[in-house]
Amino acid sequence: MSVRFRNLDKASSYHLLHGEPRVRLREALTAQRVHDYQCGYDLGAGEQLAYNYAAKQVSEPILGRLQALANEQQLIEKYRLILGGEIMNTGEGRMVLHHLCRGDLAGPVVHEGRNLREFYEAQRARFGELAEGVLDGRITAPSGDRFTSVVQIGIGGSDLGPRALLLALAGCEYEYGGLARRGPMLDVRFISNVDPDDAAAALCGLEPESTLFILVSKSGTTQETLTNEAFAINWLTHAGVREPRRQIVCVTSQTSPLAKSSHYLDSFFIDDYIGGRYSSSSAVGGTVLCLAYGPQVFAELLSGAHEADRAALAPTVTENPALLDALIGVYERNVLGCGSTAVLPYSQALVRFPAHLQQLDMESNGKRVNRDGEEVAYSTGPVIFGEPGTNGQHSFYQLLHQGTDVVPLQFVGFARPQHGVDLPYDGSTSQMKLNANLVAQIVAFALGRTDQDANKHFPGERPSSLLWADTLGPRTLGGLLAHFENKVMFQGLAWNLNSFDQEGVQLGKVLANRVLGSGELDEVLAAYARLYVRA
Amino acid sequence: MSVRFRNLDKASSYHLLHGEPRVRLREALTAQRVHDYQCGYDLGAGEQLAYNYAAKQVSEPILGRLQALANEQQLIEKYRLILGGEIMNTGEGRMVLHHLCRGDLAGPVVHEGRNLREFYEAQRARFGELAEGVLDGRITAPSGDRFTSVVQIGIGGSDLGPRALLLALAGCEYEYGGLARRGPMLDVRFISNVDPDDAAAALCGLEPESTLFILVSKSGTTQETLTNEAFAINWLTHAGVREPRRQIVCVTSQTSPLAKSSHYLDSFFIDDYIGGRYSSSSAVGGTVLCLAYGPQVFAELLSGAHEADRAALAPTVTENPALLDALIGVYERNVLGCGSTAVLPYSQALVRFPAHLQQLDMESNGKRVNRDGEEVAYSTGPVIFGEPGTNGQHSFYQLLHQGTDVVPLQFVGFARPQHGVDLPYDGSTSQMKLNANLVAQIVAFALGRTDQDANKHFPGERPSSLLWADTLGPRTLGGLLAHFENKVMFQGLAWNLNSFDQEGVQLGKVLANRVLGSGELDEVLAAYARLYVRA
Repeated sequence: MSVRFRNLDKASSYHLLHGEPRVRLREALTAQRVHDYQCGYDLGAGEQLAYNYAAKQVSEPILGRLQALANEQQLIEKYRLILGGEIMNTGEGRMVLHHLCRGDLAGPVVHEGRNLREFYEAQRARFGELAEGVLDGRITAPSGDRFTSVVQIGIGGSDLGPRALLLALAGCEYEYGGLARRGPMLDVRFISNVDPDDAAAALCGLEPESTLFILVSKSGTTQETLTNEAFAINWLTHAGVREPRRQIVCVTSQTSPLAKSSHYLDSFFIDDYIGGRYSSSSAVGGTVLCLAYGPQVFAELLSGAHEADRAALAPTVTENPALLDALIGVYERNVLGCGSTAVLPYSQALVRFPAHLQQLDMESNGKRVNRDGEEVAYSTGPVIFGEPGTNGQHSFYQLLHQGTDVVPLQFVGFARPQHGVDLPYDGSTSQMKLNANLVAQIVAFALGRTDQDANKHFPGERPSSLLWADTLGPRTLGGLLAHFENKVMFQGLAWNLNSFDQEGVQLGKVLANRVLGSGELDEVLAAYARLYVRA
Repeated sequence: MSVRFRNLDKASSYHLLHGEPRVRLREALTAQRVHDYQCGYDLGAGEQLAYNYAAKQVSEPILGRLQALANEQQLIEKYRLILGGEIMNTGEGRMVLHHLCRGDLAGPVVHEGRNLREFYEAQRARFGELAEGVLDGRITAPSGDRFTSVVQIGIGGSDLGPRALLLALAGCEYEYGGLARRGPMLDVRFISNVDPDDAAAALCGLEPESTLFILVSKSGTTQETLTNEAFAINWLTHAGVREPRRQIVCVTSQTSPLAKSSHYLDSFFIDDYIGGRYSSSSAVGGTVLCLAYGPQVFAELLSGAHEADRAALAPTVTENPALLDALIGVYERNVLGCGSTAVLPYSQALVRFPAHLQQLDMESNGKRVNRDGEEVAYSTGPVIFGEPGTNGQHSFYQLLHQGTDVVPLQFVGFARPQHGVDLPYDGSTSQMKLNANLVAQIVAFALGRTDQDANKHFPGERPSSLLWADTLGPRTLGGLLAHFENKVMFQGLAWNLNSFDQEGVQLGKVLANRVLGSGELDEVLAAYARLYVRA
């Protein structure tokens, strides 16, 4: 079948979707539906990730239209093109290969004589060896001190995803060197912001002689990251470290200025086909995760992600959670008119996962032109926000329940905690209370409650879905990561966007450099600069 | 003048506002306007907080209509009622007195024979003494060990505000005991989520014998907080601590079950007139902040907030930043139709301030009924989200610049960093780069850039304002806190809401307790509970 790219509003099923009767959850949501409206991932090693969409405002006819839309927009075929190495980042003329960091699903991708799967795997082996060398004490600082802390310097995708994943695994039990462990083996910190207070705070209390840095910039030219590298080198030098770059490893592309320097302890490579916000599975996320938890934990995470990638090839929407989640999101955005989506993990370990998804989704699909550079006539990516439950219940849920706009919700939950400690109190354990709250919220949002007092009336009809696993470990985390990446990809394909560039971040960079340069400024920028940028 | 409560759409100026020509920033924004469209706070001790609204889509006629709206809705008169102790939390029949924790602006508020300003001040003196006793080593654990760490157990307003403020001040220089210091004097942590992994992670690495707990629950019945207290007591007991409650102080109301126990080390009181999300200025925020930074830092924070409260009495909108910010927000929400607002602090220290504002704003004004319990016919509180810049630039700014919806923006910036370290690199310091990015973003959002390539075209016309101070210290932080509290208050008054209750959080609690109880469940809730709540 030849593949054809066209806007969402050129698909007849999209228009037919508007004509389907809306679903009222108060009528539709039954116990049977709670059991029936779910599908899931087999992530290997006995781990599952389920997707329950019983509380979404879909019906059999709507699901049928969504299937037709998936077919018309050829979403699976386009995913196959991505996997096979087609140039799907059209504006920049690049392939999109983050899936290939996790495994091969479409035969070898060979570019300029190089098998890229082998390239990514070779890098993984190299940063895995670095991690083992550091953890085992074979690789030390020039002073001979063992590295006891590691600081990742990077911004955007070089920060948000790796940081979210590091925190998500901090409570897991794992094995390294034959011992059962919990928590990172090194003191891990991050510097991202060009704000000098970020670097100063991150370095506070660390020993310069035993701190390893990971400098992450694909281009090797990111302003924040190079500025913070200078900050770190100054910190090391002031402490008497003579060869500061021997305490820095780079994660960069082979063509970057960083890769050309022989002063660094080592360099690990990515390429132009791994976008920043999709780079957690590459050396960008892998180096720090291997240093924290060992290469085996990272390998399991990749394996979980790979299985989720494989499941995303299923052509039937009700058997493909990422595809279904994507299409329900399109329905909510373009038919129901919702402007934002909340991600609500009932797991404190996922505290920064919504911030990662915020970048992943909003930077990928916050676009007003299609992949051919033409303005689209429909809404694209929504605002994404979220905090862990039950915390959010005591914060912004008021608006979600009784605000004037409907915000679709994406819950995430787990049967068991990461730490082994779960105490009974007042007749139930903490985890039971956590999950009782989770299911109570799903039902409260869907069904509401009628009350004579309008202030105590809950209109309900606020749709939600639930991603569910037994416990949050590397494999389920990999599955979750891939689920959302693939969801965002399918939405971008449905909207006919290029989800893999980010031209919207360029203008600010250009103007900031103009402010810092010596040239003449336009009068408005000059006025702001005079007031707010002090030498 | 008698005060009259009525819906926004009953005000004639509101309808006239719709008729005013829209402002195009490309035409309106000039260097002169950048200088003219600002007002500010004098926060005392030589500190200022400025509010620049040059890049908001307002004109002299629109500002005139907003002034008329402030007058018609009697916003200042209603603020005076709040200050004077009128029952403004109508549904719950309560006064709204968080301003009174910072100072007296409307004469004494006396309730049942008690002067409430004196009550709040007496509590402040008491928790200040506790802090000094702990810091100076006069108050110790029963074992005789000095307390070296403190863990606050609380959720919602007992967590988000205190945590945001603690982090915001972590880089400041301050004095305690005659010594210059930076950073908290104790290891401060928080437990909020009922997820047992939250407590397990927070307690990791702490010494039970030298850990003080602050248990915060106004009612003394918050499920998460009591469950986590039990978790903490179990942790203490397992370590051999015999009188665990001698290592716990409570912050609660005098009528709560906690206040009745004599087992605790001490208790500090708030009352029903301090709402959770407005409680950072009370014992809820004060106890932990005094333990971290000493009572003087907290006193300065209150002083800055008090000066901002005083400035919010100004009747002229262009001389009252909180009032103006509120009304511009109403204009953006109800005339321009924007569904969300992003808060973008160019300061890493404010990393959790947007999460606090998310609660403050969305829990206060995410309502669909007015203060008299009647459904309103207009949009109320927007979705609030945000992350520090420059981080956000490498994340969700793509959507802000080029997405299909316009998201109004609230920037916050500072001339100088908190830590003294600001190094030159590549011709400018980190702080100069930070602020060059800040002004570049304001201009890029407002003016955009025309490009033949639609993918590189920036439509502009994306409005923003800037709150600006010299540096982030206790006084400016207090000013910022009060600015946003008062902004939210004025918006709620303009919309004719009760911004001080949160009935929308009740239904979920009721259903969660039903799941945990022994009674019969409705079939849908039962189906979810069977699948996802395990004993």
